[in-house]
Amino acid sequence: MDHDEFRRLGHRVIDWIADYRERMATLPVMSPAKPGEVRSRFPAAPPARGGGVPAALAALDRDLLPGITHWNHPSFFAYFPANASYASVLGDLLCAGLGAQGMSWQTSPAATELEEVVMEWLRQIVGLPAAFQGVVQDTASTSTLCALICARERATGLAQRHRGLQSGAPALTVYASDQAHSSVEKAALLAGFGRDHLRLVGTDAQHALRLDLLEKEIEKDVAAGRRPCALVATVGTTATTALDPVAGMAALAERHGAWLHVDAALAGMAMALPECRWMWEGVERADSLVWNPHKWMGVGFDFSAYHVRDPELLTSVMSTSPAYLRTARDGEVRNLRDWGIPLGRRFRALKAWLHLLDEGVEGLQARLRRDLDNARWLADQVDAARDWDRLAPVPLQTVCLRHIPTDQRDEKRLTAHNLAIAERVNRSGKAYLTPSVLKGKQVIRVSVGAEATGRAEVEALWKMLKAAARAV
Amino acid sequence: MDHDEFRRLGHRVIDWIADYRERMATLPVMSPAKPGEVRSRFPAAPPARGGGVPAALAALDRDLLPGITHWNHPSFFAYFPANASYASVLGDLLCAGLGAQGMSWQTSPAATELEEVVMEWLRQIVGLPAAFQGVVQDTASTSTLCALICARERATGLAQRHRGLQSGAPALTVYASDQAHSSVEKAALLAGFGRDHLRLVGTDAQHALRLDLLEKEIEKDVAAGRRPCALVATVGTTATTALDPVAGMAALAERHGAWLHVDAALAGMAMALPECRWMWEGVERADSLVWNPHKWMGVGFDFSAYHVRDPELLTSVMSTSPAYLRTARDGEVRNLRDWGIPLGRRFRALKAWLHLLDEGVEGLQARLRRDLDNARWLADQVDAARDWDRLAPVPLQTVCLRHIPTDQRDEKRLTAHNLAIAERVNRSGKAYLTPSVLKGKQVIRVSVGAEATGRAEVEALWKMLKAAARAV
Repeated sequence: MDHDEFRRLGHRVIDWIADYRERMATLPVMSPAKPGEVRSRFPAAPPARGGGVPAALAALDRDLLPGITHWNHPSFFAYFPANASYASVLGDLLCAGLGAQGMSWQTSPAATELEEVVMEWLRQIVGLPAAFQGVVQDTASTSTLCALICARERATGLAQRHRGLQSGAPALTVYASDQAHSSVEKAALLAGFGRDHLRLVGTDAQHALRLDLLEKEIEKDVAAGRRPCALVATVGTTATTALDPVAGMAALAERHGAWLHVDAALAGMAMALPECRWMWEGVERADSLVWNPHKWMGVGFDFSAYHVRDPELLTSVMSTSPAYLRTARDGEVRNLRDWGIPLGRRFRALKAWLHLLDEGVEGLQARLRRDLDNARWLADQVDAARDWDRLAPVPLQTVCLRHIPTDQRDEKRLTAHNLAIAERVNRSGKAYLTPSVLKGKQVIRVSVGAEATGRAEVEALWKMLKAAARAV
Repeated sequence: MDHDEFRRLGHRVIDWIADYRERMATLPVMSPAKPGEVRSRFPAAPPARGGGVPAALAALDRDLLPGITHWNHPSFFAYFPANASYASVLGDLLCAGLGAQGMSWQTSPAATELEEVVMEWLRQIVGLPAAFQGVVQDTASTSTLCALICARERATGLAQRHRGLQSGAPALTVYASDQAHSSVEKAALLAGFGRDHLRLVGTDAQHALRLDLLEKEIEKDVAAGRRPCALVATVGTTATTALDPVAGMAALAERHGAWLHVDAALAGMAMALPECRWMWEGVERADSLVWNPHKWMGVGFDFSAYHVRDPELLTSVMSTSPAYLRTARDGEVRNLRDWGIPLGRRFRALKAWLHLLDEGVEGLQARLRRDLDNARWLADQVDAARDWDRLAPVPLQTVCLRHIPTDQRDEKRLTAHNLAIAERVNRSGKAYLTPSVLKGKQVIRVSVGAEATGRAEVEALWKMLKAAARAV
């Protein structure tokens, strides 16, 4: 493809994206595709001859779009808000077009230094102390894995550099709530702790970790000769945005010399609002923290913000310095390959940079407040409705609700009934939400926060839910 | 940013990228920026007000470009070829614009199914047997970490699900050559094996792993009660593209029940040429294999191809299935979140798909053969020159050379002399190559394979090297 063809096709793709987003509200939110349907549209073998791009782009509406679930749709209420703002799309395009490597400072100084600038901006936006230094990871899963590996290594005096985890030393234990994200369990298993050494501590009526139970678990482990290694506090759980008591967990972590990792994947961006910062009181005592600007904030996936208080430990755990990667600048600069697992790194700072320039902190705050209001409004409707139940507090933008027909108290029937309601809404294509299970109860989970979602869409969803409850 | 502004600015960014690439040959290959220079161009705090994107885009040439090392430059001979073809830039743009999540099949069926299609195409292109199934990872580092964790878990009957690595079972050992990439060591350390249990086996005059030494190391470990867990064969080492004996390593792995992982990060794409496939003879006996289409092949970073023979083991090790991620389709489809570490996944198949449509297999093969010829030509010049030395065979596209002035045999002086030559070329901005150390000897490493590199650029580089050798 030559320069001119790239210009021509590039303009066409830009226009296709704008067309797509302009008419997105008319598309079914959840893809109606059946398994294998998309795959069947593509040949089983690669093309021998080139030149196939123009035809492929012309057929996007037919071949690809029916297989897309529209995460930026104004009636997307499933999983989590995953906005990819136009500004961040432009940043990602620049990243792709430059094709620069950010593995070392020298391999493109701008990639490292703009990442430093942007991570510093993000630290200020969410109000973290200056003691935290940040780096971009792909996801919260990876960030939490980095945190637990660092915890493991700190607890063992960098055992990785010697005998590793197989030396018969005291078992290391990890603690989180029974509402912690599955990535915490996954990280503990991948880091080698073993499920037997992962404690998923019980939660209170608000679905937040119970400090008294945590303390008991820790004491039991210590008494049995095990070593408390890491505590993971979730600020804004996936199911209900419950808030673990960070300060109390920090005190326990300090008492036992354990690592404190804060998982604020979704809720982190709410800390751009000073009125929300009570939610993670004590966060300044954490060893590490992750939150995802690629969620509610609007930076296109993937852009996970990982902040640590001891970058030297992180780089001790992650660095290697073979001859072919050394440069004359190594003593003076950050080599971000030493701040995470992958060696190669995209220039991801560009998309966050353009996104923040486009919205400004005030614009971002206004949008977050709009979403909090909309979620609050929905919670109020549920509370006022006789036959609907709300199953968790709504500190942020997620509402867990279910319909309880008059006199129906049988859990099995309630489950089938509410699954049918969710299925009906999702299949309609008019909105998309997540059926989930919260402590044994089937719930319908409504996550507000797509950039295009206004009050009108939330009101329409509430009407749809009520109509579906009558119809099923 | 509204739809119209996105169209306007989007066209502008496309044109900026085309302009940039059109004049790239006139820019200094390696960024001349000094530490802190780029950072100083950006404010220390985020903007309160939005609307800053047009101004930022207008200032790209001033603020950003001087900090970019141009990996797609026709005279880029450093590290590895990391082409980001125009077609793959368009694919990445589509990915950003769609903003679709590929974590589960249901979250965008097209993201999963096009990845299946593309990974199957890639498998055919490099001639792997149909028993291998593929998935996209970000980098070879991450793929190798997945491989070593899977090896660990297979060897211990999924210890992660029980007591983890702390149970006092026999120590697990990992083997690779002393020329293996640093990511193998890093993966072994992160996976908890410990450096004491990593054997970096000696290599022969061609810098390939010596089977006799490997066998001795394994036998020593077995005799001492340790358990050989994983062998990593490198096909195309980073320093010299040396080729480890895959078939012989497979036989040893089978004899000891160890995992065989093949790291063909760079060389994998050469297997698109049938005449190169002898280089990884025995690969069909590997448990896992990684190669990077984001290198020489031309798919923009990040796109690492990870193939496994036992996807069930991979998903056993990587899967979690919390209530909020379950969907009605889970039994019928692949959920790619269970095929790697991160939960969230970009729609990376798009860029590989468009790239392959654009080049076709024949176009790709022609380009690879051109690069092999160019590297061979350079090797011939070195061999014919009285005062230059070639330090390794050139089976692929990397040439390791050094200048030896008449009667100079002092290694310290030779090191300083060749470092000065490399520095002079790199500082000139006319070309960029990597000074490295190979078994104690300072070498200049020339890696051929940028999409825009023709014979003229390789000839110019050879002239520059000779001139630099005279000048320093």
